[in-house]
Amino acid sequence: MPSAPPSAPVVPLERAHIGIIGAGQLGQMIALAGMALGHEFTFLDPSPRPPAARLGRHIQAEFDDAAALEQLAVECDVLTFEFENVPVAALAPISQIQTLHPGTHALAIAQDRLEEKTFFGQHGIPVAPYAAVDSLDDLRAGIDRLGLPAVLKTRRLGYDGKGQFVLRTRDDAEPAWAAVHGQSCVLEAFVPFTREVSIIAVRSATGEQAFYPIGQNRHVGGILHRTDVPTEDSAQAQAEDHARRVLTALHYVGVLAIEFFEVDGRLIVNEMAPRVHNSGHWTQNGADTSQFENHVRAILGWPLGSTARTRPSVMLNLIGQMPDAQALLALPGTHWHDYGKEPRAGRKLGHLNITAAHEADCQAIAARAEALIFGTAPL
Amino acid sequence: MPSAPPSAPVVPLERAHIGIIGAGQLGQMIALAGMALGHEFTFLDPSPRPPAARLGRHIQAEFDDAAALEQLAVECDVLTFEFENVPVAALAPISQIQTLHPGTHALAIAQDRLEEKTFFGQHGIPVAPYAAVDSLDDLRAGIDRLGLPAVLKTRRLGYDGKGQFVLRTRDDAEPAWAAVHGQSCVLEAFVPFTREVSIIAVRSATGEQAFYPIGQNRHVGGILHRTDVPTEDSAQAQAEDHARRVLTALHYVGVLAIEFFEVDGRLIVNEMAPRVHNSGHWTQNGADTSQFENHVRAILGWPLGSTARTRPSVMLNLIGQMPDAQALLALPGTHWHDYGKEPRAGRKLGHLNITAAHEADCQAIAARAEALIFGTAPL
Repeated sequence: MPSAPPSAPVVPLERAHIGIIGAGQLGQMIALAGMALGHEFTFLDPSPRPPAARLGRHIQAEFDDAAALEQLAVECDVLTFEFENVPVAALAPISQIQTLHPGTHALAIAQDRLEEKTFFGQHGIPVAPYAAVDSLDDLRAGIDRLGLPAVLKTRRLGYDGKGQFVLRTRDDAEPAWAAVHGQSCVLEAFVPFTREVSIIAVRSATGEQAFYPIGQNRHVGGILHRTDVPTEDSAQAQAEDHARRVLTALHYVGVLAIEFFEVDGRLIVNEMAPRVHNSGHWTQNGADTSQFENHVRAILGWPLGSTARTRPSVMLNLIGQMPDAQALLALPGTHWHDYGKEPRAGRKLGHLNITAAHEADCQAIAARAEALIFGTAPL
Repeated sequence: MPSAPPSAPVVPLERAHIGIIGAGQLGQMIALAGMALGHEFTFLDPSPRPPAARLGRHIQAEFDDAAALEQLAVECDVLTFEFENVPVAALAPISQIQTLHPGTHALAIAQDRLEEKTFFGQHGIPVAPYAAVDSLDDLRAGIDRLGLPAVLKTRRLGYDGKGQFVLRTRDDAEPAWAAVHGQSCVLEAFVPFTREVSIIAVRSATGEQAFYPIGQNRHVGGILHRTDVPTEDSAQAQAEDHARRVLTALHYVGVLAIEFFEVDGRLIVNEMAPRVHNSGHWTQNGADTSQFENHVRAILGWPLGSTARTRPSVMLNLIGQMPDAQALLALPGTHWHDYGKEPRAGRKLGHLNITAAHEADCQAIAARAEALIFGTAPL
């Protein structure tokens, strides 16, 4: 286990006041877990009525509002974020006056696809071939080197498939470059993957590390649609090894998610998110300790809870509009999570966790649930 | 299954506004479960900063404040309570204008030990021999009939062993009668029980019923200290049969707890609580659906979640002062629950749930946890 970084708290915080930058559903679920542990929360978020606001004090301000961030830092015992696109420049000053987990170093790397790939490469974590793109000429040179199809992604501010363009022919280069409006990009070689998996890892301020069983993810239109957590996964050891390198190299504190493509049994990293992650929502009902509780434990320097899967689990996202809760909850082993958001196409409004004593039952219920969800809320 | 009473909602409420009378830790845990389901909460409680107040709007008013209760009724879609000593007379008017689950009928019975015993007797549920006591002469006649030792209990407003006096000799009659200040009482024959068990039962507004595995309780000084949930319990069927009679007779809606004494393998009812109950806290980490979530589902007319125990479980109350969280959480399978209350002798401040894959491991961890808790916070 690595030694803790000099800035880590050595005295664990009990009944802490935790500040979260961002008050969406991730902040909401962190707070629901943290309040049961006796902590209180303040959120900074520009929205007038974000999902988490009911769970504590809400400072309504932009993510780069220096005065509001300072207020949050002074008021709270420790800070974290639920959203990785917070400007690092805005967080740097407050990280001087208050503990921020994960730190700005991890955040800066995760915000920039080029830096992220460089970091993975430096730490022996396989990445798909890529090229930096700052001009149409760069893009054409990248296509020559990597071949087609390939994916052009903006270096910054991409999530849920936003800021991504698939190039299938050389003629796609010009419109794709126009679409990114001159933003710095990376071109990624297309990876003929057999499946997408992700690992939720966590490191406490004490240096203790833990890893959840990996989830197998299905995306639809760039948005996570479903996560399955098989009993034993051949890729678990690889994923843990990669995640351990990242946690250790960054002296990381909190929950970290890493998404991978599996190609011929080998994991190639796609990207990481320095926060709790949608592909870990199954842990609320299917693991001994949820990712949300472990994030809170980690940033306070508490011992981590067991990451063991207690039962076969499937998570289905509820996107765009909420389906019929009654019909879904009449299925055995279903667990409803509603973020209280207004419906909007493509918006994550909630999720359904499905648990069962046996894998086959879990799969059968998931199939029936998907039929009900698609029947009322097609993606 | 019984038909639903005429007052039950036939249309399930989604994203409901739930009013809770009382904002202690039970209200807090109901709200934490309910908010994850997309609901919002308002609490009525006379305390200035009760545990649940951070989870919604708090109307600070006495439990019999008619105007405040009416405000709660008007503002919310459905009402419930976390505390059975709310005056029935105060609730009667609001139950005319808003759905209240459980109803005032169940509440009135549970508030009065004599009515409760009469009710149990009428429905074939065994009770220990008892006598109504309204005078010192009644008390002496009761002692003659029931023998000694016996327990004198006020008919109303007793909980956690308050308002109870054990009589060992005839000379105890006079001081015991003086101590109850002329309140109506019942004298209960001492029951030579081998153990105390309780069942958490739930009935939805739709009429659907479900029963949790029974817990085995240990009280210290009249306060619940520990609940164990064995894998299979010989008394489960008896407890379910008794609980089913109560739920059905009362057209009950919500979670109901019934405490029993076991005497020669036979269950004798002690008392019931028309609410979520301390002996059901293990369900947060050891059951498929917690008692808190099922109470919310029930009062909204939602399908109930599975009450299956997922793992061997023990619950330990944290009373008087909080022990060292770090030491306890370093034990595997421990789950921390802190209500955020100020320490005070005899006060329930939190609980520790312990889960493990195997019964023996669960017991071993519970023994170590008890040693740590008693070491820092003796009862």
